[in-house]
Amino acid sequence: MVNENQHTCSASSSSKSDGGSSSGSESSKDSSRCSTPVLDAERHERLREKMRRRQDSGDKWFSLEFFPPRTASGAVNLTSRFDRMGAGGPLFIDVTWHPAGDPGSDKETSSMIIASTAVNYCGLETILHMTCCNQTKDEITGHLQKAKRLGLKNIMALRGDPAGEEWQEEVEGFNYAVDLVKHIRNEFDDYFDICVAGYPKGHPEAENYEADLRHLKEKVLAGADFIITQLFFRFFFLKFMKDCQAIGITCPIVPGIFPIQGYHSLRQLVRLSKLEVPQEIKDVIEPIKDNDAAIRNYGVELAVSMCRELLDSGMVHGLHFYTLNREVATTEVLKRLGMWTEDPRRPLPWAVSAHPKRRVEDVRPIFWASRPKSYIYRTQEWDDFPNGRWGNSSSPAFGELKDYYLFYLKSKSPREELLKMWGEELTSEESVFEVFTCYITGELNKNGHRVTCMPWNDDPLATETNLLKEQLEKVNRRGILTINSQPNINGKPSTDPIVGWGPSGGYVFQKAYLEFFTSSEIVTALLKVLKKYETRVNYHIVNVKGQNITNAPDLQPNAVTWGIFPGREIIQPTVVDPVSFLFWKDEAFALWIEQWAKLYEEESPSRMIIQYIHDNYYLVNLVDNDFPLENCLWQVVDDTFELLN
Amino acid sequence: MVNENQHTCSASSSSKSDGGSSSGSESSKDSSRCSTPVLDAERHERLREKMRRRQDSGDKWFSLEFFPPRTASGAVNLTSRFDRMGAGGPLFIDVTWHPAGDPGSDKETSSMIIASTAVNYCGLETILHMTCCNQTKDEITGHLQKAKRLGLKNIMALRGDPAGEEWQEEVEGFNYAVDLVKHIRNEFDDYFDICVAGYPKGHPEAENYEADLRHLKEKVLAGADFIITQLFFRFFFLKFMKDCQAIGITCPIVPGIFPIQGYHSLRQLVRLSKLEVPQEIKDVIEPIKDNDAAIRNYGVELAVSMCRELLDSGMVHGLHFYTLNREVATTEVLKRLGMWTEDPRRPLPWAVSAHPKRRVEDVRPIFWASRPKSYIYRTQEWDDFPNGRWGNSSSPAFGELKDYYLFYLKSKSPREELLKMWGEELTSEESVFEVFTCYITGELNKNGHRVTCMPWNDDPLATETNLLKEQLEKVNRRGILTINSQPNINGKPSTDPIVGWGPSGGYVFQKAYLEFFTSSEIVTALLKVLKKYETRVNYHIVNVKGQNITNAPDLQPNAVTWGIFPGREIIQPTVVDPVSFLFWKDEAFALWIEQWAKLYEEESPSRMIIQYIHDNYYLVNLVDNDFPLENCLWQVVDDTFELLN
Repeated sequence: MVNENQHTCSASSSSKSDGGSSSGSESSKDSSRCSTPVLDAERHERLREKMRRRQDSGDKWFSLEFFPPRTASGAVNLTSRFDRMGAGGPLFIDVTWHPAGDPGSDKETSSMIIASTAVNYCGLETILHMTCCNQTKDEITGHLQKAKRLGLKNIMALRGDPAGEEWQEEVEGFNYAVDLVKHIRNEFDDYFDICVAGYPKGHPEAENYEADLRHLKEKVLAGADFIITQLFFRFFFLKFMKDCQAIGITCPIVPGIFPIQGYHSLRQLVRLSKLEVPQEIKDVIEPIKDNDAAIRNYGVELAVSMCRELLDSGMVHGLHFYTLNREVATTEVLKRLGMWTEDPRRPLPWAVSAHPKRRVEDVRPIFWASRPKSYIYRTQEWDDFPNGRWGNSSSPAFGELKDYYLFYLKSKSPREELLKMWGEELTSEESVFEVFTCYITGELNKNGHRVTCMPWNDDPLATETNLLKEQLEKVNRRGILTINSQPNINGKPSTDPIVGWGPSGGYVFQKAYLEFFTSSEIVTALLKVLKKYETRVNYHIVNVKGQNITNAPDLQPNAVTWGIFPGREIIQPTVVDPVSFLFWKDEAFALWIEQWAKLYEEESPSRMIIQYIHDNYYLVNLVDNDFPLENCLWQVVDDTFELLN
Repeated sequence: MVNENQHTCSASSSSKSDGGSSSGSESSKDSSRCSTPVLDAERHERLREKMRRRQDSGDKWFSLEFFPPRTASGAVNLTSRFDRMGAGGPLFIDVTWHPAGDPGSDKETSSMIIASTAVNYCGLETILHMTCCNQTKDEITGHLQKAKRLGLKNIMALRGDPAGEEWQEEVEGFNYAVDLVKHIRNEFDDYFDICVAGYPKGHPEAENYEADLRHLKEKVLAGADFIITQLFFRFFFLKFMKDCQAIGITCPIVPGIFPIQGYHSLRQLVRLSKLEVPQEIKDVIEPIKDNDAAIRNYGVELAVSMCRELLDSGMVHGLHFYTLNREVATTEVLKRLGMWTEDPRRPLPWAVSAHPKRRVEDVRPIFWASRPKSYIYRTQEWDDFPNGRWGNSSSPAFGELKDYYLFYLKSKSPREELLKMWGEELTSEESVFEVFTCYITGELNKNGHRVTCMPWNDDPLATETNLLKEQLEKVNRRGILTINSQPNINGKPSTDPIVGWGPSGGYVFQKAYLEFFTSSEIVTALLKVLKKYETRVNYHIVNVKGQNITNAPDLQPNAVTWGIFPGREIIQPTVVDPVSFLFWKDEAFALWIEQWAKLYEEESPSRMIIQYIHDNYYLVNLVDNDFPLENCLWQVVDDTFELLN
């Protein structure tokens, strides 16, 4: 397989994010048609602009703070927590900096890699914390360069806790957060949005409250864009905010909210933050300290009423939540406040990445529909992303997927669970058909387990796919092992809860698509049948060795999802691209082995069955080009079976 | 609204034709997402490839030879002849080189400029003749560089006629066509396709027939891609072809066909070409030498039977016609042979240009729909053309249209005719309304003349616009002076004779569009009405001073024509682009003065009425985004008049 790792195009985007705004007059490059802000203004704004826009429109927002996990499996869990909590619509998340945990390293548990995962793979606007004490200038610059390279655009500049017993100012080093703010602005100009911490009760080490306010103002003057406060238990916040304004701090100040979630976590946090818990709270908690649920309920209650008061003051536009990496309490508070966006409108049919270089990306091959993180991973080295059109990708330069166990690609289910779903013991190809069928129908398998994921899709069936459930069940039973499909759609409103995406007032369209593994006997019959559908159905049929049969004209991509919106150009977010398909087929075939066969002992019959399928089956995709007519792909399959009988 | 019927003949990639075929590995430019061959393979092929493809598919073709005109008005006429004869589907046209007429100059009658017009403005694959004798190497290189710059890709390499009485070989200069062929290949590598002349009866100055064949072979060996023969009267051609093959000439040989069109033109041609007219032809012609029509009928008859014999031989794949810049005879022959493509499928809704740098162009603002040549002129300096998406053209850099009288932009109708159509004397704004109304209805005006063109559209109403005729008539009568419009289309077959375009098997769509001039009173009412349609209708309203009112989001373009095709990406060839609209409005307002007001004396009442409209009216465009519903723009206009009453 060709595997070129440099993918370039003439587009202009990267130069802009370097802050070098090119002057309008020499426009031959400026007028380049390749880099276009399209659907979603928010996708192109910096965090501080988003904040300002929300403030101007009166649209309240929230953000979520996480800390890096201790273990690799913790990283897998945190990534799916990002996905779940990202669905609630936070304006951003932030990831704390743990000096003890090698925070700038490439370890999957480092602050840097967790923040990068949030940006790149979960599509979340993310702030990376960074502390400066006990570090050299070069170390810090190195961290910042790496953060920039990974697509991070926001830094929370902190002093950090001194390493020794008593903190000593270093003459040459960074002693305060303000030094870090200045350093970022000196070295990276306006590239990063910078956040700093505010202390509604004053920093525990500050001389006094007024001195601490002056320090805060210095940080803002040095270039900070907004302030997030330390958590607090009483309504110090509004006084703090007024005091800030009084001394001329005009940037946004976001209150840090800490929903009490348990006795021990509260004690620990209090110890770290050197805050005192008010007596009235202690009075409630002490008697119920062994009842986690009761404490959490109380914590939610308390947080909701505090947030309501803050929002009602008219001075607060956003709320920052200290989640402690937990979902329930924060989600509950947000739902009760009406700020949790239950079903956020999808800007595109697939999960976007928040890396700045991908901000114009609006076309992807449909093959990775259920594996968006793998797609992002395999295209991470591209300098340029398809925008408006996929193009004739004669060398799409997909990175090889060598490691199927990267934490953000790994299945959420452990081996034992997978075995229960996919069979402790396989006896025939038909027993594999049954696994596929159970996944489609949602019925229990022979051993009474539900099949909620497959090697090609770590999540249960999409709502959209449910539209095809009956037909999918029928064909899977007969050995058409489907791994991707979509119904044809002839102009449904873009607000349609199942197939809609993009801004409201538009219309979305789809060509029917079906992708499956099947035996060579079925392929032989299928090819005969497809002759009848020659111009109507485009097909690509390939086996693991790369033997490839297609009727696609000139290796051109076929747009299979598109949308028409008021006052916009056409958006066509998914295509069937013949060239990318050959890269996808390597991954799709490898998943049989990597995720399924390897569950079994070598030489075991179960493993040999999967290996046989891997070696002998074909991967097929079909597109029905006549989207206004009834989907003919089921007829194609019926005709095929008829021919076989 | 013009239904431009240009056939696509076009271009090949300039990088390829520069000979620097980039090796597959450094593919950063090759894999660019921005430059994608899309709809029409032919648009990207070189002439010799097109010829080969036609030969392989057995699809017979024809080509047309023209000479440069003597006068500027001749150039205007020849340009519209290119448009009309281009509609018949020639594989290419060629333009002869007139050494006496300063053929490489910028004069509108030069061979160079006429060939460039054919390529750039008429979208025709074009061969420029070039002779070499009596010219220095530098002069010739200069001509070739200029030709390349202007988008010409094919040269017919000829010796030309010596200047003196007796021809003398020049030791240092170019003595034969073969020297020119070698020079082109030396200096321009493989950039140009090169054609050379063959003489079925031997060149008149050659020692003998065999020597002439050897010279021809030398020209081919030096790098010529194909041969066009001198005209001939008897069936020398097939013998000539066999003789060529016998000595190893394998490139295409195209017979030159000369339909006799008149007694004098025949005599002149015979004198120049030193050919003898066979006695049996003389016998027919001499008795009818004063009856042009009779001679032409005979000439057509003769040409048809000769062409049939050539095509039936199976050795001939294309026919080259010496048109003498006349239409009737050649068109008649081609129609009788069934080779005239009556209604060639439009590859895009607008007339493409054949300049190689425009070969990927597939999006244009709708404003120039009736003035494609002006659009091409104003964008001729662009290095990069929109492909797939118009993009956010914050600086589209349109060239200024300073000269409204460029021969390829000029009205085909002389001043007197325009006065008859648009009124010798205007008495009020209403008399202007009437001109617009008569243009729409096709009815005679007060003075009994039909209005077949307007300053914004030099052709009668397009068939598509006829779909809106009734409503257009109604609104023009009341002072909504429409200059561009299209109906909404919700998925008609791409083969639809009126609104179809692109390959077959697709579906085309349109948003309803209406563009008009109107008074400020009407605009005031219109704006009130538009509030009711806020998200559904996008509008841009501007006066000559540039006061601009719009509800378009973020200056984004609105796609108003698009097509979905089997196995292709979405094509969206026309957009309403807010930024380009401000460039178009300068042109649209200026046409009132340049083409209409200036027909009248200064200070005359007629001129002052047009000047008043120019100074006070607004140019308005409206798009109904809800293309699946009934067009609401007529309701918008009705509501406006209702509000006024």
